[in-house]
Amino acid sequence: MEMHRVHFDILVAELNRVLLETGFTTERAQRLARIFTETTRDGVYSHGVNRFPAFAGQARSGKGMDLHAEPESASDFGVLEQWDGKLGPGILNACVCMDRAVEVARAHGMGCVSLRNTNHWMRAGTYGLRAADAGCIGICWTNTTQLIPPYGSADRKVGNNPLVFSIPRPEGRHFLLDMAMSQYSHGKLDVYRVANRRLPVPGGYDDSGNLSYDAGAIQAARRPLPIGYWKGIGLSMSLDLVASLLSGGRSTYQIAQEEAEYGVSQVFIAIHADAVAGDRMHEIVDRTLADFRAAQPLEGSDPVSYPGERMFRTREENLALGIPVEADRWQEILAL
Amino acid sequence: MEMHRVHFDILVAELNRVLLETGFTTERAQRLARIFTETTRDGVYSHGVNRFPAFAGQARSGKGMDLHAEPESASDFGVLEQWDGKLGPGILNACVCMDRAVEVARAHGMGCVSLRNTNHWMRAGTYGLRAADAGCIGICWTNTTQLIPPYGSADRKVGNNPLVFSIPRPEGRHFLLDMAMSQYSHGKLDVYRVANRRLPVPGGYDDSGNLSYDAGAIQAARRPLPIGYWKGIGLSMSLDLVASLLSGGRSTYQIAQEEAEYGVSQVFIAIHADAVAGDRMHEIVDRTLADFRAAQPLEGSDPVSYPGERMFRTREENLALGIPVEADRWQEILAL
Repeated sequence: MEMHRVHFDILVAELNRVLLETGFTTERAQRLARIFTETTRDGVYSHGVNRFPAFAGQARSGKGMDLHAEPESASDFGVLEQWDGKLGPGILNACVCMDRAVEVARAHGMGCVSLRNTNHWMRAGTYGLRAADAGCIGICWTNTTQLIPPYGSADRKVGNNPLVFSIPRPEGRHFLLDMAMSQYSHGKLDVYRVANRRLPVPGGYDDSGNLSYDAGAIQAARRPLPIGYWKGIGLSMSLDLVASLLSGGRSTYQIAQEEAEYGVSQVFIAIHADAVAGDRMHEIVDRTLADFRAAQPLEGSDPVSYPGERMFRTREENLALGIPVEADRWQEILAL
Repeated sequence: MEMHRVHFDILVAELNRVLLETGFTTERAQRLARIFTETTRDGVYSHGVNRFPAFAGQARSGKGMDLHAEPESASDFGVLEQWDGKLGPGILNACVCMDRAVEVARAHGMGCVSLRNTNHWMRAGTYGLRAADAGCIGICWTNTTQLIPPYGSADRKVGNNPLVFSIPRPEGRHFLLDMAMSQYSHGKLDVYRVANRRLPVPGGYDDSGNLSYDAGAIQAARRPLPIGYWKGIGLSMSLDLVASLLSGGRSTYQIAQEEAEYGVSQVFIAIHADAVAGDRMHEIVDRTLADFRAAQPLEGSDPVSYPGERMFRTREENLALGIPVEADRWQEILAL
């Protein structure tokens, strides 16, 4: 596949142009273009430029998305706030809600903002990084439509809800766990299927119900594996229930009643860790990560890396060399 | 293995006797005896009576545990509180902290109490149920010593930190996720090894580095599998970092520097969901769980069950028939 390396500013400018032509205001177009670009810069291609044409398409069709909607506070009790996303763009809604959680955390130690009637927030890690940039621990998640079968069934009943933990570190080198509940994302299975490569660990079941390393067979059977089998199912259900309860929004089974996925529910928690950990925070994190990185790699394995470590290396490389964009994708965006 | 069925009240009374003779005050002995019995009643034998003799032994030796220590609030900022467990009994410390988180949540929507210098809390789910009994969503976790190797290494660097989500339901039939980060607990591997049974899903690596269904081979290699391979490692690290940062206590690598596991760090979060979800809470949860339970079981599989569902059935059976205790274990307790 032919790749272009596109400079960060050029990518922002090009996405911005498309978004302006789509009808977003100057300020909203700029914020969206920047986040799609940052996502791509960090190597999360599936939710960056590769997803951008579909996002622009949805915005132009207006299906399930109101370009100009602003999220509104619907109710609150202490540090718990419930917001209504009014089907605005998921990225913008989520930024407002994590920023609000940070604001509450700075005043009261912790803030928990739940959000209903919102749309796909693209890269989950965006909002964790946002909390960490503001000096807070960030914990957030979203529900999705039904994508994963429970253990012992082939019926897809549970969402592939991404869960994020972020911990601030100096110079933006944050600890960032950004994980969905399936062992592999759909995009990752695509990559292995197209390359005809065996998955490193089992990724689901094939049509005969056997655990499989074959991405194509798993996709054909529509039986991706949740992390930890029954455990990932339980975690995914927990996230869905808490998100729908707190936000008053739809839970996974309700989202699945519509043909397209929209109107999802999310939770944004910020913790003002400085307030209790103080100056020791960075030292504690650094020492823990240093001990982890001292793990001896197995023969043929890469050195271990903590969540966020490789992302930061990819970011630096992409800032230095330009952000890789598939040639076809770049043409597609230029033509939007 | 021969089993006795012991009535709930008789088990409480017997454990209470041992704890009084161990030196606990009347009130503390009663609370501990009750929680060990409830844990066994709910089918979590590994952290109920089966663990009780070791607990009593540690209490009698005084190693790393102060029988009479009360946890103390060390600092706070808004809804964030940091407590010092002063190496008191883990169960009692954890109860105080979850109760305090609930108190803060009732006043301010959410409470987050972190606890350092504490001891093994036995069954993690105890504190989730406690929050749910008080009408709150409970989220809590503890760190542990180093037990799991990261993906691509055989060095055990990461804790097997249990994570709990509880959601209140009527009549105590709470949703309760209580999961550690390894696919199987050590106790569960023991059961399969002794019975010479194949694990239902891979549980770790053998000495040759192959994924294995053989509990004995996994234990010999000391390479249990985390849920989701690299994903469970990332989640476990997140929980450890947040627990040690918020509590100011030890992180997993520091706990591992001692021969025995003590002085761990924990987090207790309670969310006063009623305040925003109101009367709709039970209906939302019921409908979501009903949809989940409608999943068609695969041929030869049991019907799917949500976290906490089987536990409640076990509880009812054990209350009706008596709580199963291995004959040898019962003799051991009677002789303590």
